[in-house]
Amino acid sequence: MSTDHSAKVQRDAEGRLRHLITLDGLSRDEIVALLDLAQFYARTPGELAARDQTLAGHTVANLFFEPSTRTRVSFELAAQRLGADVVNLDMQSSSRVKGETVLDTIYTLQAMQADILVMRDAEPGLPAYVAKYVAPHVCILNAGEAHLSHPTQGLLDALTVRQTKGDFAKLKILIAGDLSHSRVARSAWHAFTTLGVAELRIAAPEDLMPGKDEFKGATRFTDIDKAISGVDVVMTLRIQRERMSGASIPDEATYHHTFGITADRLAKANKDAIVMHPGPMNRDVEIASAVADGPQSVIQRQVTNGVAVRMAVLATIARNVQARRHFQ
Amino acid sequence: MSTDHSAKVQRDAEGRLRHLITLDGLSRDEIVALLDLAQFYARTPGELAARDQTLAGHTVANLFFEPSTRTRVSFELAAQRLGADVVNLDMQSSSRVKGETVLDTIYTLQAMQADILVMRDAEPGLPAYVAKYVAPHVCILNAGEAHLSHPTQGLLDALTVRQTKGDFAKLKILIAGDLSHSRVARSAWHAFTTLGVAELRIAAPEDLMPGKDEFKGATRFTDIDKAISGVDVVMTLRIQRERMSGASIPDEATYHHTFGITADRLAKANKDAIVMHPGPMNRDVEIASAVADGPQSVIQRQVTNGVAVRMAVLATIARNVQARRHFQ
Amino acid sequence: MSTDHSAKVQRDAEGRLRHLITLDGLSRDEIVALLDLAQFYARTPGELAARDQTLAGHTVANLFFEPSTRTRVSFELAAQRLGADVVNLDMQSSSRVKGETVLDTIYTLQAMQADILVMRDAEPGLPAYVAKYVAPHVCILNAGEAHLSHPTQGLLDALTVRQTKGDFAKLKILIAGDLSHSRVARSAWHAFTTLGVAELRIAAPEDLMPGKDEFKGATRFTDIDKAISGVDVVMTLRIQRERMSGASIPDEATYHHTFGITADRLAKANKDAIVMHPGPMNRDVEIASAVADGPQSVIQRQVTNGVAVRMAVLATIARNVQARRHFQ
Repeated sequence: MSTDHSAKVQRDAEGRLRHLITLDGLSRDEIVALLDLAQFYARTPGELAARDQTLAGHTVANLFFEPSTRTRVSFELAAQRLGADVVNLDMQSSSRVKGETVLDTIYTLQAMQADILVMRDAEPGLPAYVAKYVAPHVCILNAGEAHLSHPTQGLLDALTVRQTKGDFAKLKILIAGDLSHSRVARSAWHAFTTLGVAELRIAAPEDLMPGKDEFKGATRFTDIDKAISGVDVVMTLRIQRERMSGASIPDEATYHHTFGITADRLAKANKDAIVMHPGPMNRDVEIASAVADGPQSVIQRQVTNGVAVRMAVLATIARNVQARRHFQ
Repeated sequence: MSTDHSAKVQRDAEGRLRHLITLDGLSRDEIVALLDLAQFYARTPGELAARDQTLAGHTVANLFFEPSTRTRVSFELAAQRLGADVVNLDMQSSSRVKGETVLDTIYTLQAMQADILVMRDAEPGLPAYVAKYVAPHVCILNAGEAHLSHPTQGLLDALTVRQTKGDFAKLKILIAGDLSHSRVARSAWHAFTTLGVAELRIAAPEDLMPGKDEFKGATRFTDIDKAISGVDVVMTLRIQRERMSGASIPDEATYHHTFGITADRLAKANKDAIVMHPGPMNRDVEIASAVADGPQSVIQRQVTNGVAVRMAVLATIARNVQARRHFQ
Repeated sequence: MSTDHSAKVQRDAEGRLRHLITLDGLSRDEIVALLDLAQFYARTPGELAARDQTLAGHTVANLFFEPSTRTRVSFELAAQRLGADVVNLDMQSSSRVKGETVLDTIYTLQAMQADILVMRDAEPGLPAYVAKYVAPHVCILNAGEAHLSHPTQGLLDALTVRQTKGDFAKLKILIAGDLSHSRVARSAWHAFTTLGVAELRIAAPEDLMPGKDEFKGATRFTDIDKAISGVDVVMTLRIQRERMSGASIPDEATYHHTFGITADRLAKANKDAIVMHPGPMNRDVEIASAVADGPQSVIQRQVTNGVAVRMAVLATIARNVQARRHFQ
């Protein structure tokens, strides 16, 4: 169904999910099963006090070639709360010092019997490349890949929409902002589309609007005020200054004025519309501070769901390893 | 009883300790209870072999805006030995890279269901500021705040005095050194005063002596040789070069000569006086190396007590969260 | 039997191993016992799923004065898989900031009731120096010391040879490369010699060949093609550019041509010879990429054995502490 290379690489011979590199190609049932398991893990701290031991004896290694404290901590807590051993490798400073190739680093972790490698990279291609070479018991989880893919973010966004707005078949969802550089938007598009969203709108300044071969099925807007009108969900994207070199972006104040999610703009959405942001926020740039902290914001719920979704993905992937081992 | 903003912020509606930001306002009973619990945790490694699970299912996040390996490791071990999950965030490099506000970082950790945030900062005000915004289940522990407060240090100093010298009502204690920049001295003053020390002396070079609105009840000395005469406890302070820019401090050799705790000076204290230092030491600057390693030194015991005190504070604060949850 | 200072320092009064600083002076029986225990720990991830709790309640601190993600992670996983609490101290940046001496850092960790200190340093002497000062319950594990010693590497190399080639009394082993700067080679020489290897050859370019007072009993070669002829084990060493300033080393291509382990050269060894490398590899410098990934390579098995050997050493050293405590 998918022509994406990563979508094929992440399946085992039986078609089970072996890695999670992209949401491309995941069926509706697969996504629903992951969301259901995440919902089970999305308990209050009190209920979490009896530690789950699903990943006891498993080792999760975080390899962040691009720094992200937020995502690293989310994966680290998810793994710890399932009883896994966790090691963090700062791939920016340490391991490239001695000139070792990335694949040798992966082989080393695999030989140390690491079970799940959580990878983040600013360049595209590494997770799928590595996935082709690892041993059968090793799983690759993509924690953010260039502008392409951030599958656990897509799942946590879907879980947040499902919790707060219910049936996707009745929803109009808007993804707005720097779509061109956004892995968050691409993974959310996969999730929302697969879950059967009634209408998906995307809005970006002209220079930040991806080509027509992407975000298929979405209605395109360059005018945010038109785009937001009547939607149930407003997902705004981080202005990623570090990715935007060369693009003809106006200054932050102008961006806020012409494209930021302000209270006035939000008033054009449905009355009970929710507002989402993947964080970290540039307050009063892509989103007004008052909106971020307002009653329609579900931004902190997204973070909570992030840990739960990562627990669900870790547990699912680890169980699929066992299934291959014992039933093949 | 206290007019300190932090002292009020750290209480819940019932008056229980919700955070620990300052020792200001803690009653004698509260401090004694913390010391008693710390004494329970101050066991030998052999006795610690059966792991306490008081904080199982809890998450402790270390947020150090000012680096301190020593204090971070002490809190990390305290949390681990109570069965907590621990994550470390190096706030100097990672999280401010993307321009997120501190409060958004806190909200993110809170949304990830972190229970206790251990914070250290070179600037004043952050712990009390943050404490006002966090959810009811989140606790802030101050691990060092500017020159103002270092409550677990004050408690470990009190525990060390209690273990080695007994009843505060019979003790003369001297705190000597760079009082002006010392959060250690301020928290020790709170602890010793509340516990009813017979006489508290403070000694500092004139430029490093705080104003009369601070260290109330203490006798002030600028001559260390007079100050040390007949005391039971000599607590010397680290010369913090990184904090002293602009102050008219002599070179290290002169400081040692005029204000360092040497064997000769120590001989003027009571025969069985103990010597304390919060570490890390500048040997042969504020303290003679022979004194630091001598029979009257309790410096390593302070470190041991540091872990025990932090276990006691973590356990107490976490229990107060449960109390609020179930009995309000 | 040994005149090495470290060899004496690492024994307790009863002659038990108290620290592990060097393989010098370990008896054949002692090494065999460590390898046997390591073999017990060298299980598959599935079998590791029931977590060993040998080190529950113990604290392992990693102090890396020289960075090494690979070795740090190996020790960290070994400790975690035995149920220990683990803390990492980056000694390059953090603790020397405030000018504390190394010994004070050690005393601090000891006072925090750390049980095992894993140390790596680019300079010689620190582990043995520190070992003289620590309390009876604290053990020092050398994780790499200058060009001198890397005992767990020597043990993992011995385990790998034993697993794949069996009886040392029948084996010809070649260690080839930058011997002069190699702690790996020195520790391997200790292990292989003590285990009774039939013939040990060492080969290095003239400038990188150590003096005759080292590697006693080994046959020396400067011609790699002659050295490799008929051996059962080829252990090649990393070219450590960072250690070679001043040596008259040719460029990497020339080194590969004149001293690298290529397929052609390997063909001169015994048909079923194994190829070893301590990692991280400089591919196509000291070892041809095809050889590293070829059927005779046991390089990944070395990494797996590294974790197992470190588990065995941690468990053995910790048990010896208990033995001293209860039976002295």
